[in-house]
Amino acid sequence: MRPLDEATARAWLATALEEARAGMAEGGVPVGAALYGADGALLGRGRNRRVQDGDPSTHAETAAFRAAGRQRSYRGTTMVTTLSPCWYCSGLVRQFGISRVVIGEAVTFRGGHDWLAEHGVEVVVLDDPECVAMMREFTARNPELWGEDIGE
Amino acid sequence: MRPLDEATARAWLATALEEARAGMAEGGVPVGAALYGADGALLGRGRNRRVQDGDPSTHAETAAFRAAGRQRSYRGTTMVTTLSPCWYCSGLVRQFGISRVVIGEAVTFRGGHDWLAEHGVEVVVLDDPECVAMMREFTARNPELWGEDIGE
Repeated sequence: MRPLDEATARAWLATALEEARAGMAEGGVPVGAALYGADGALLGRGRNRRVQDGDPSTHAETAAFRAAGRQRSYRGTTMVTTLSPCWYCSGLVRQFGISRVVIGEAVTFRGGHDWLAEHGVEVVVLDDPECVAMMREFTARNPELWGEDIGE
Repeated sequence: MRPLDEATARAWLATALEEARAGMAEGGVPVGAALYGADGALLGRGRNRRVQDGDPSTHAETAAFRAAGRQRSYRGTTMVTTLSPCWYCSGLVRQFGISRVVIGEAVTFRGGHDWLAEHGVEVVVLDDPECVAMMREFTARNPELWGEDIGE
C-alpha cells in the first residue's frame, strides 16, 4: 500500500467533513465518511442517516461503504471518517479487509480503532479541531440522540 | 433477561430461515435474520441483499436491525441469524447492546460470536441441519459471491 501523506489525508477528511456538515444542517448525527480506492479515487461517500431516513443501520462508514457498491476486494482502500469508528463500523472495516482508516478525531468518542490496529489495519488519527468542535456542539445539544446512535 | 427455551429459539430461527430461503430463491446470499424484543415480539426481519439490491452493506442482521427502526435501547433483545455473524454484524450486536444472539449454524462459517460471548452477549448455537445444508449448497455453487460477501 502506498504511504499516505498528510496533505492527502487532510484532503480526504475534507470530503468526510462535508458529509458531516450536511448531516448537521439536516438535524442529523454529524458524522461523515468516505471510502477511497488504492489508486486514490473516491469510491463512495456518505453520512449518518438515523434521523434523516429513520434508519439506525446507516452510520457514516456504512453509508460510504454502500455508496461504493459491490467490490471484489477492499485491499488498499482507505475509510476516512470524521469520528473514531464504533464497533459496528470497526467490524465492517475488519470483515471486508479495508486496509486503512483515517479518523478526524477520537476525543469525543473512542470506538474500536485500537482493535483494528491490532488486527493489521493502518490507523491514522488527525485530531482535527473542526471535527471535535462539531461533535461537542452536537452531543451537548442532543445527548439523547447521540446515546441512541451508539446504543448507550 | 428471560431464559430462552429451545422451542422458542427454534421458532425464532424459523423466521430467519424463511428469510434465508427467500434470499436463495432470489439468487442472493442465503442468510436471514430477525430481531426479537425483550417481550418476544418480532421487531424486524430481513436477509442479505448484496445481489438483490447491489448493496454490500445489507447483511441479514443489519437488514433485520434496520427493519426494526429506531429503538432507544436494545436491552433484552435477541438477534436470530441463520449463520454465525461476521465481524461487521458482531460489531453491530456489541455496539448496540443486543443482549442475545441465536445462531442457526457456525459450521460453514465462524464469525465473531465467541468475541460477543466474551463481552457479555448470551450466545446460543443451534446446529440446525437445514441452515448447514443451505450454506453448503450455496457456497459450493457460488464460491466467488460468497468470498465477496465476507471480504475474502
